[in-house]
Amino acid sequence: MRAYNFSAGPATLPTEVLTQVQEELLDWRGKGVSVMELSHRGPEFMEILATAERDLRALLAIPDHYRVIFCQEGASAHWDMIPLNLLQGRSRADYIETGYWSYRAIEEGRRYCQVNIAASNRRDKFCALPSFEEWRLDPGAAYVHYCSNETIDGLEFNWIPDVGKVPLVVDMSSHFLSRSVPVERFGMIYAGAQKNIGPAGLSLVIIRDDLLRTPAPGTPFLMDYHAQVLANSMLNTPPTFTIWVAGLVFQWIKRQGGLEVMDRQAQQKSELLYTTLDRSGFYRTTVKPADRSRMNIPFHLLDPVLDEVFLREAESRHLLQLRGHRMSGGFRASIYNAMPVAGVHALVDFLEEFERHYG
Amino acid sequence: MRAYNFSAGPATLPTEVLTQVQEELLDWRGKGVSVMELSHRGPEFMEILATAERDLRALLAIPDHYRVIFCQEGASAHWDMIPLNLLQGRSRADYIETGYWSYRAIEEGRRYCQVNIAASNRRDKFCALPSFEEWRLDPGAAYVHYCSNETIDGLEFNWIPDVGKVPLVVDMSSHFLSRSVPVERFGMIYAGAQKNIGPAGLSLVIIRDDLLRTPAPGTPFLMDYHAQVLANSMLNTPPTFTIWVAGLVFQWIKRQGGLEVMDRQAQQKSELLYTTLDRSGFYRTTVKPADRSRMNIPFHLLDPVLDEVFLREAESRHLLQLRGHRMSGGFRASIYNAMPVAGVHALVDFLEEFERHYG
Repeated sequence: MRAYNFSAGPATLPTEVLTQVQEELLDWRGKGVSVMELSHRGPEFMEILATAERDLRALLAIPDHYRVIFCQEGASAHWDMIPLNLLQGRSRADYIETGYWSYRAIEEGRRYCQVNIAASNRRDKFCALPSFEEWRLDPGAAYVHYCSNETIDGLEFNWIPDVGKVPLVVDMSSHFLSRSVPVERFGMIYAGAQKNIGPAGLSLVIIRDDLLRTPAPGTPFLMDYHAQVLANSMLNTPPTFTIWVAGLVFQWIKRQGGLEVMDRQAQQKSELLYTTLDRSGFYRTTVKPADRSRMNIPFHLLDPVLDEVFLREAESRHLLQLRGHRMSGGFRASIYNAMPVAGVHALVDFLEEFERHYG
Repeated sequence: MRAYNFSAGPATLPTEVLTQVQEELLDWRGKGVSVMELSHRGPEFMEILATAERDLRALLAIPDHYRVIFCQEGASAHWDMIPLNLLQGRSRADYIETGYWSYRAIEEGRRYCQVNIAASNRRDKFCALPSFEEWRLDPGAAYVHYCSNETIDGLEFNWIPDVGKVPLVVDMSSHFLSRSVPVERFGMIYAGAQKNIGPAGLSLVIIRDDLLRTPAPGTPFLMDYHAQVLANSMLNTPPTFTIWVAGLVFQWIKRQGGLEVMDRQAQQKSELLYTTLDRSGFYRTTVKPADRSRMNIPFHLLDPVLDEVFLREAESRHLLQLRGHRMSGGFRASIYNAMPVAGVHALVDFLEEFERHYG
């Protein structure tokens, strides 16, 4: 039987997608070979890649003047690729600090330019987003970088900052495809695959075509966005199997009803979980309600002495990978698109029962 | 049924490995989750990674003072990573030119240092390896780079150059694990996965520990070999599923009898194919017999007008992906470890029959 898997990433995938992968694993479409064994230059894989891009474009209504790159590198490689490609001779960029992942991007950005931290919630211990009125943007910045869902801290933007003409660059890794977004508000969107897209070993870039320019001298050739676009994401052999699975996930989302349905379910699942946590005096959460993530829900027992018991009992009910990030301790339930509503119900039932027993 | 797939990469994988992947795809070891869904920081994946490294070390008898890195980047990323990590302030490096892939490494190396092409077979049209007596090595070079099997040109080194104290760096992508190699003769070995290791989206590095130093300033953080070693290949989320499959391939090689058996079969399979091609007046090969690759065997029809007929008829017999690289035309049979002897027999039978019919 399939467990309910709350891992923050690599994360649960739709059972329906995994079943299709399983069925076709040794024999894709009667060809007698696995997708893993197809040449990336052959017509079969070219069709897989083109279909994946077409479906992604349909889901997000990506305008024609935005290009899609399937990158072998993970999301964190873009912390270097963004300044290398987007500074274009400027020396300054704006970064918003809202938690662990946006801070890592800042640290790496500092190696390439003068980073202006235009807003930070560090003094709030990363428990609330800095309101837009506090942002001190630099009109001479090459771009503004932020992370719209902090996977570890459990914060999510449900608004898009208006930064004027400066290109807005966003790390959407952990809530990508969980709601519609007006792509044209961004200069560039990027996301690692292992949350809402597919297996680890892939990231996606959606970039406005006027930002595709020759990168800084010395940029490793695979880190050149413009060259990757010109090569149709095939400057080198792409992770073909991973791209195939991502494409199957896009098709699965379409069959469910698209991003509108993902959005509604994210709302429903996260409300169910937060309501249970809020009405209890036994669990605690730390994030300000308005800024809570619908995808990554960190919580704690008031008394951490029961942490290991909690995890053991959860596991015995096939509720897996609830351990919190090593930096924050406690627990974290990641409830991405592929987590069924029934999984959240099972978790909520367990939370209540555990509280009744030990509370 | 499974076809015989002669793709140069992504390439055929052992049917036994794919069957195991299929069986465990939704439920790995009764855990109720796919390997794709396991957190990379959890004990399950840590064990997968440790086992893969241990098996690789056993297969190649890797000495303790060499470290193994599982890189998300493909082999071609190392064309940048090698100078960034190994120049260590020197300005010159030796490169050997023997075909398409070694030339690509040279082009990229020139962006970082003064490349001395210590030997080249360009005047021989890449049809024979430059004999070691012709190599003009620079004793002040930071390293010597070569490619020990040219996938497109079909050349293979069955000897290892003695370059003295200068670290020898080798791209072994397309014949990795097809024979034993004395690892201690090399400073660094690297190989892309999608030939003899597993699915695309991974490369392996085996590096002597004294070469692990702080890379050049400005090196993107994921391209730092030393940092990757310190982080146990987990500076970011690694391609977990791909590493799992690679580990299953290592175990499969061990069950077959290790590299000695891979070596013997490579000899047997390639002899069978070359013998058939040589005794025909209908097909032609271009590489000097002593330097022929046992893995990648390019060949042509004397009359290319029949090329498409050949490919169509081959495909109707489930002999797939025999089209030559777009730069060389004609055909190429890649017969990696996972290609069964029966597959080469089927190809040879077809070659003979096609010649009888059209010759």
